[in-house]
Amino acid sequence: MKNNFRNSKLLVIEDNSDHRFFIEKAMKTCLSEVSAIHMSTEQQAIAYMDSCLYQEWDLPTLILLDLYLPNRENGWRILEHIRQMPTPINQIPIVMLSYSNQRDDIAEAYQKGISSYLVKPTHEEEWVSYFQKLRSYWWETVTLPKMRFSF
Amino acid sequence: MKNNFRNSKLLVIEDNSDHRFFIEKAMKTCLSEVSAIHMSTEQQAIAYMDSCLYQEWDLPTLILLDLYLPNRENGWRILEHIRQMPTPINQIPIVMLSYSNQRDDIAEAYQKGISSYLVKPTHEEEWVSYFQKLRSYWWETVTLPKMRFSF
Repeated sequence: MKNNFRNSKLLVIEDNSDHRFFIEKAMKTCLSEVSAIHMSTEQQAIAYMDSCLYQEWDLPTLILLDLYLPNRENGWRILEHIRQMPTPINQIPIVMLSYSNQRDDIAEAYQKGISSYLVKPTHEEEWVSYFQKLRSYWWETVTLPKMRFSF
Repeated sequence: MKNNFRNSKLLVIEDNSDHRFFIEKAMKTCLSEVSAIHMSTEQQAIAYMDSCLYQEWDLPTLILLDLYLPNRENGWRILEHIRQMPTPINQIPIVMLSYSNQRDDIAEAYQKGISSYLVKPTHEEEWVSYFQKLRSYWWETVTLPKMRFSF
Protein backbone atom coordinates (compact mmCIF):
# COMPACT_ATOMS: atom_id res chain seq x y z
CA MET A 1 0.00 0.00 0.00
CA LYS A 2 1.46 3.32 -1.06
CA ASN A 3 1.48 6.43 1.06
CA ASN A 4 -0.49 8.38 -1.53
CA PHE A 5 -3.55 8.80 0.69
CA ARG A 6 -1.75 11.11 3.11
CA ASN A 7 -3.21 14.63 2.78
CA SER A 8 -4.43 13.57 -0.61
CA LYS A 9 -6.60 15.91 -2.68
CA LEU A 10 -8.28 15.32 -6.01
CA LEU A 11 -9.02 18.42 -8.07
CA VAL A 12 -12.17 17.76 -10.12
CA ILE A 13 -12.76 20.24 -12.95
CA GLU A 14 -16.28 19.52 -14.20
CA ASP A 15 -19.12 21.80 -15.31
CA ASN A 16 -21.92 19.25 -15.67
CA SER A 17 -23.85 19.10 -12.41
CA ASP A 18 -25.13 15.55 -13.03
CA HIS A 19 -21.61 14.24 -13.59
CA ARG A 20 -20.42 16.18 -10.57
CA PHE A 21 -23.09 14.46 -8.51
CA PHE A 22 -22.00 11.01 -9.74
CA ILE A 23 -18.36 11.85 -9.04
CA GLU A 24 -19.13 12.99 -5.48
CA LYS A 25 -21.19 9.87 -4.87
CA ALA A 26 -18.50 7.57 -6.29
CA MET A 27 -15.81 9.27 -4.21
CA LYS A 28 -17.86 8.80 -1.04
CA THR A 29 -18.22 5.12 -1.89
CA CYS A 30 -14.67 4.25 -2.78
CA LEU A 31 -12.29 7.14 -2.30
CA SER A 32 -13.44 8.53 1.00
CA GLU A 33 -9.92 9.20 2.34
CA VAL A 34 -9.32 11.73 -0.44
CA SER A 35 -10.63 15.31 -0.29
CA ALA A 36 -12.30 16.54 -3.44
CA ILE A 37 -11.90 20.11 -4.64
CA HIS A 38 -14.49 21.03 -7.26
CA MET A 39 -14.09 23.72 -9.90
CA SER A 40 -16.55 24.20 -12.71
CA THR A 41 -15.06 26.80 -15.05
CA GLU A 42 -11.72 27.49 -16.73
CA GLN A 43 -11.34 30.74 -14.77
CA GLN A 44 -12.00 29.05 -11.41
CA ALA A 45 -9.64 26.16 -12.15
CA ILE A 46 -6.79 28.43 -13.24
CA ALA A 47 -7.31 30.78 -10.28
CA TYR A 48 -7.23 27.79 -7.92
CA MET A 49 -4.00 26.40 -9.40
CA ASP A 50 -2.39 29.84 -9.35
CA SER A 51 -3.31 30.24 -5.69
CA CYS A 52 -1.42 26.99 -4.97
CA LEU A 53 1.80 28.83 -5.83
CA TYR A 54 1.42 30.57 -2.47
CA GLN A 55 -0.49 27.89 -0.59
CA GLU A 56 1.25 24.67 -1.46
CA TRP A 57 -0.77 22.68 1.09
CA ASP A 58 -3.74 23.12 -1.28
CA LEU A 59 -1.98 21.33 -4.15
CA PRO A 60 -3.92 18.37 -5.53
CA THR A 61 -2.37 14.91 -5.79
CA LEU A 62 -4.15 14.24 -9.06
CA ILE A 63 -6.32 16.32 -11.40
CA LEU A 64 -9.45 15.01 -13.10
CA LEU A 65 -10.15 17.32 -16.03
CA ASP A 66 -13.26 17.47 -18.19
CA LEU A 67 -12.60 18.73 -21.74
CA TYR A 68 -15.72 20.58 -22.93
CA LEU A 69 -16.03 23.31 -20.28
CA PRO A 70 -18.21 24.17 -22.19
CA ASN A 71 -15.90 24.30 -25.25
CA ARG A 72 -12.82 22.19 -25.65
CA GLU A 73 -10.68 25.34 -25.89
CA ASN A 74 -11.48 25.84 -22.18
CA GLY A 75 -10.16 22.39 -21.34
CA TRP A 76 -7.06 22.81 -23.51
CA ARG A 77 -6.24 26.15 -21.87
CA ILE A 78 -6.42 24.64 -18.36
CA LEU A 79 -4.19 21.74 -19.44
CA GLU A 80 -1.63 24.03 -21.09
CA HIS A 81 -1.67 26.41 -18.13
CA ILE A 82 -0.91 23.66 -15.60
CA ARG A 83 1.81 22.14 -17.78
CA GLN A 84 3.50 25.57 -17.99
CA MET A 85 3.39 26.22 -14.24
CA PRO A 86 6.60 26.02 -12.17
CA THR A 87 8.01 22.75 -10.87
CA PRO A 88 6.65 20.68 -9.12
CA ILE A 89 3.11 21.84 -9.94
CA ASN A 90 3.55 21.02 -13.64
CA GLN A 91 4.31 17.39 -12.69
CA ILE A 92 0.89 16.63 -11.22
CA PRO A 93 -0.71 13.86 -13.30
CA ILE A 94 -3.81 15.00 -15.19
CA VAL A 95 -6.43 12.39 -16.10
CA MET A 96 -8.91 13.61 -18.69
CA LEU A 97 -12.50 12.49 -18.06
CA SER A 98 -14.72 13.55 -20.96
CA TYR A 99 -17.82 12.27 -22.73
CA SER A 100 -16.03 12.81 -26.04
CA ASN A 101 -14.71 9.70 -27.71
CA GLN A 102 -13.57 11.64 -30.76
CA ARG A 103 -10.22 10.44 -32.04
CA ASP A 104 -8.94 14.02 -32.46
CA ASP A 105 -9.82 14.99 -28.89
CA ILE A 106 -8.11 11.89 -27.51
CA ALA A 107 -4.98 12.39 -29.65
CA GLU A 108 -4.70 16.09 -28.80
CA ALA A 109 -5.12 15.41 -25.08
CA TYR A 110 -2.22 12.92 -25.07
CA GLN A 111 -0.22 15.32 -27.25
CA LYS A 112 -0.70 18.11 -24.71
CA GLY A 113 0.54 15.95 -21.85
CA ILE A 114 -2.33 14.24 -20.08
CA SER A 115 -1.47 11.07 -18.25
CA SER A 116 -4.46 9.08 -19.49
CA TYR A 117 -7.85 9.61 -21.09
CA LEU A 118 -11.09 8.19 -19.73
CA VAL A 119 -14.35 8.37 -21.65
CA LYS A 120 -17.17 9.10 -19.19
CA PRO A 121 -19.37 6.17 -18.21
CA THR A 122 -22.77 5.96 -19.88
CA HIS A 123 -24.53 4.18 -16.97
CA GLU A 124 -24.81 5.53 -13.47
CA GLU A 125 -23.43 2.42 -11.77
CA GLU A 126 -20.25 2.54 -13.88
CA TRP A 127 -19.05 5.70 -12.12
CA VAL A 128 -18.23 3.76 -8.97
CA SER A 129 -16.33 1.14 -10.93
CA TYR A 130 -14.31 3.91 -12.64
CA PHE A 131 -13.39 5.38 -9.28
CA GLN A 132 -12.42 1.95 -7.98
CA LYS A 133 -9.99 1.69 -10.91
CA LEU A 134 -8.66 5.19 -10.24
CA ARG A 135 -8.16 4.32 -6.56
CA SER A 136 -6.49 1.04 -7.34
CA TYR A 137 -4.07 2.55 -9.85
CA TRP A 138 -3.30 6.10 -8.71
CA TRP A 139 -3.50 5.67 -4.94
CA GLU A 140 -2.54 2.01 -4.41
CA THR A 141 0.03 1.33 -7.16
CA VAL A 142 1.64 4.44 -8.64
CA THR A 143 4.34 6.52 -6.96
CA LEU A 144 3.35 10.16 -7.35
CA PRO A 145 5.70 13.13 -7.57
CA LYS A 146 6.21 14.74 -4.18
CA MET A 147 4.75 18.18 -3.74
CA ARG A 148 6.87 20.25 -1.33
CA PHE A 149 4.49 20.13 1.61
CA SER A 150 3.30 16.56 1.28
CA PHE A 151 5.74 14.71 3.49
CA MET B 1 -14.62 -3.55 -21.60
CA LYS B 2 -12.49 -1.37 -23.85
CA ASN B 3 -11.15 -2.44 -27.21
CA ASN B 4 -7.57 -1.90 -26.13
CA PHE B 5 -6.64 -5.59 -26.39
CA ARG B 6 -6.94 -5.64 -30.18
CA ASN B 7 -3.48 -6.09 -31.71
CA SER B 8 -2.10 -4.84 -28.44
CA LYS B 9 1.63 -4.76 -27.84
CA LEU B 10 3.57 -3.81 -24.72
CA LEU B 11 7.12 -2.62 -25.26
CA VAL B 12 9.20 -3.61 -22.22
CA ILE B 13 12.57 -1.86 -21.94
CA GLU B 14 14.43 -3.66 -19.16
CA ASP B 15 18.06 -4.74 -18.77
CA ASN B 16 17.80 -6.82 -15.60
CA SER B 17 17.25 -10.45 -16.56
CA ASP B 18 15.59 -11.36 -13.24
CA HIS B 19 13.06 -8.57 -13.59
CA ARG B 20 12.53 -9.50 -17.21
CA PHE B 21 11.73 -13.05 -16.10
CA PHE B 22 9.18 -11.79 -13.53
CA ILE B 23 7.60 -9.51 -16.12
CA GLU B 24 7.25 -12.35 -18.64
CA LYS B 25 5.76 -14.61 -16.00
CA ALA B 26 3.32 -11.94 -14.80
CA MET B 27 2.25 -11.20 -18.37
CA LYS B 28 1.57 -14.87 -19.02
CA THR B 29 -0.56 -14.98 -15.88
CA CYS B 30 -2.65 -11.87 -16.34
CA LEU B 31 -2.00 -10.14 -19.62
CA SER B 32 -1.84 -13.05 -22.01
CA GLU B 33 -3.76 -11.29 -24.81
CA VAL B 34 -0.99 -8.73 -25.13
CA SER B 35 2.23 -9.39 -27.04
CA ALA B 36 5.40 -8.34 -25.28
CA ILE B 37 8.33 -6.83 -27.15
CA HIS B 38 11.52 -6.88 -25.08
CA MET B 39 14.44 -4.50 -25.51
CA SER B 40 17.33 -4.35 -23.08
CA THR B 41 19.51 -1.41 -24.10
CA GLU B 42 19.02 2.24 -25.04
CA GLN B 43 20.31 1.57 -28.55
CA GLN B 44 17.92 -1.37 -29.14
CA ALA B 45 14.93 0.52 -27.79
CA ILE B 46 15.58 3.61 -29.93
CA ALA B 47 16.24 1.50 -33.04
CA TYR B 48 12.97 -0.36 -32.46
CA MET B 49 10.95 2.83 -32.06
CA ASP B 50 12.59 4.36 -35.13
CA SER B 51 11.74 1.26 -37.17
CA CYS B 52 8.07 1.81 -36.24
CA LEU B 53 8.11 4.94 -38.39
CA TYR B 54 8.06 2.60 -41.37
CA GLN B 55 6.27 -0.36 -39.84
CA GLU B 56 3.41 1.13 -37.92
CA TRP B 57 1.89 -2.26 -37.19
CA ASP B 58 4.80 -2.80 -34.79
CA LEU B 59 3.85 0.21 -32.66
CA PRO B 60 3.31 -0.60 -28.98
CA THR B 61 0.09 0.33 -27.18
CA LEU B 62 1.99 1.14 -24.02
CA ILE B 63 5.67 1.37 -23.07
CA LEU B 64 7.11 0.08 -19.81
CA LEU B 65 10.45 1.79 -19.30
CA ASP B 66 13.13 1.01 -16.76
CA LEU B 67 15.29 4.01 -15.80
CA TYR B 68 18.79 2.74 -14.95
CA LEU B 69 19.76 1.04 -18.24
CA PRO B 70 22.37 0.82 -16.71
CA ASN B 71 22.62 4.57 -15.99
CA ARG B 72 19.67 6.86 -15.72
CA GLU B 73 20.94 8.94 -18.64
CA ASN B 74 20.10 5.92 -20.81
CA GLY B 75 16.51 5.93 -19.57
CA TRP B 76 16.16 9.71 -19.96
CA ARG B 77 17.45 9.58 -23.54
CA ILE B 78 14.89 6.90 -24.50
CA LEU B 79 12.10 8.93 -22.89
CA GLU B 80 13.16 12.17 -24.60
CA HIS B 81 13.60 10.41 -27.94
CA ILE B 82 10.09 8.95 -27.92
CA ARG B 83 8.51 12.23 -26.81
CA GLN B 84 10.22 14.00 -29.74
CA MET B 85 9.10 11.46 -32.35
CA PRO B 86 6.38 12.40 -34.86
CA THR B 87 2.68 12.19 -34.05
CA PRO B 88 1.08 9.80 -33.09
CA ILE B 89 4.15 7.89 -31.82
CA ASN B 90 4.97 10.61 -29.26
CA GLN B 91 1.50 10.13 -27.74
CA ILE B 92 2.07 6.54 -26.58
CA PRO B 93 1.81 6.46 -22.77
CA ILE B 94 5.08 5.61 -21.05
CA VAL B 95 4.95 4.01 -17.60
CA MET B 96 8.26 4.08 -15.78
CA LEU B 97 9.04 0.92 -13.81
CA SER B 98 12.25 1.36 -11.81
CA TYR B 99 13.71 0.15 -8.53
CA SER B 100 14.64 3.75 -7.74
CA ASN B 101 12.42 5.49 -5.24
CA GLN B 102 14.60 8.60 -5.24
CA ARG B 103 12.55 11.76 -5.16
CA ASP B 104 14.67 13.38 -7.91
CA ASP B 105 14.26 10.45 -10.28
CA ILE B 106 10.50 10.42 -9.77
CA ALA B 107 10.19 14.20 -10.22
CA GLU B 108 12.36 14.24 -13.34
CA ALA B 109 10.44 11.36 -14.89
CA TYR B 110 7.11 13.19 -14.51
CA GLN B 111 8.79 16.40 -15.72
CA LYS B 112 9.95 14.65 -18.89
CA GLY B 113 6.47 13.38 -19.68
CA ILE B 114 5.93 9.90 -18.30
CA SER B 115 2.35 8.94 -17.63
CA SER B 116 3.00 7.37 -14.24
CA TYR B 117 5.85 6.02 -12.14
CA LEU B 118 5.91 2.59 -10.56
CA VAL B 119 8.58 1.52 -8.09
CA LYS B 120 9.49 -2.11 -8.78
CA PRO B 121 8.05 -4.70 -6.41
CA THR B 122 10.38 -6.09 -3.78
CA HIS B 123 8.72 -9.52 -3.52
CA GLU B 124 8.30 -11.93 -6.39
CA GLU B 125 4.56 -12.41 -5.89
CA GLU B 126 3.93 -8.66 -6.15
CA TRP B 127 4.84 -8.61 -9.85
CA VAL B 128 1.60 -10.36 -10.76
CA SER B 129 -0.43 -7.94 -8.69
CA TYR B 130 1.30 -5.01 -10.44
CA PHE B 131 0.40 -6.44 -13.82
CA GLN B 132 -3.19 -6.98 -12.71
CA LYS B 133 -3.34 -3.27 -11.87
CA LEU B 134 -1.77 -2.36 -15.21
CA ARG B 135 -4.29 -4.56 -17.02
CA SER B 136 -7.21 -3.19 -15.11
CA TYR B 137 -6.25 0.44 -15.70
CA TRP B 138 -4.57 0.62 -19.10
CA TRP B 139 -6.47 -2.12 -20.94
CA GLU B 140 -9.85 -2.17 -19.24
CA THR B 141 -10.46 1.47 -18.29
CA VAL B 142 -8.38 4.00 -20.21
CA THR B 143 -9.00 5.07 -23.81
CA LEU B 144 -5.66 5.01 -25.59
CA PRO B 145 -4.61 7.20 -28.51
CA LYS B 146 -5.21 5.47 -31.84
CA MET B 147 -2.13 4.49 -33.77
CA ARG B 148 -2.78 4.68 -37.51
CA PHE B 149 -2.91 0.93 -38.15
CA SER B 150 -4.76 -0.16 -35.05
CA PHE B 151 -8.37 -0.03 -36.24
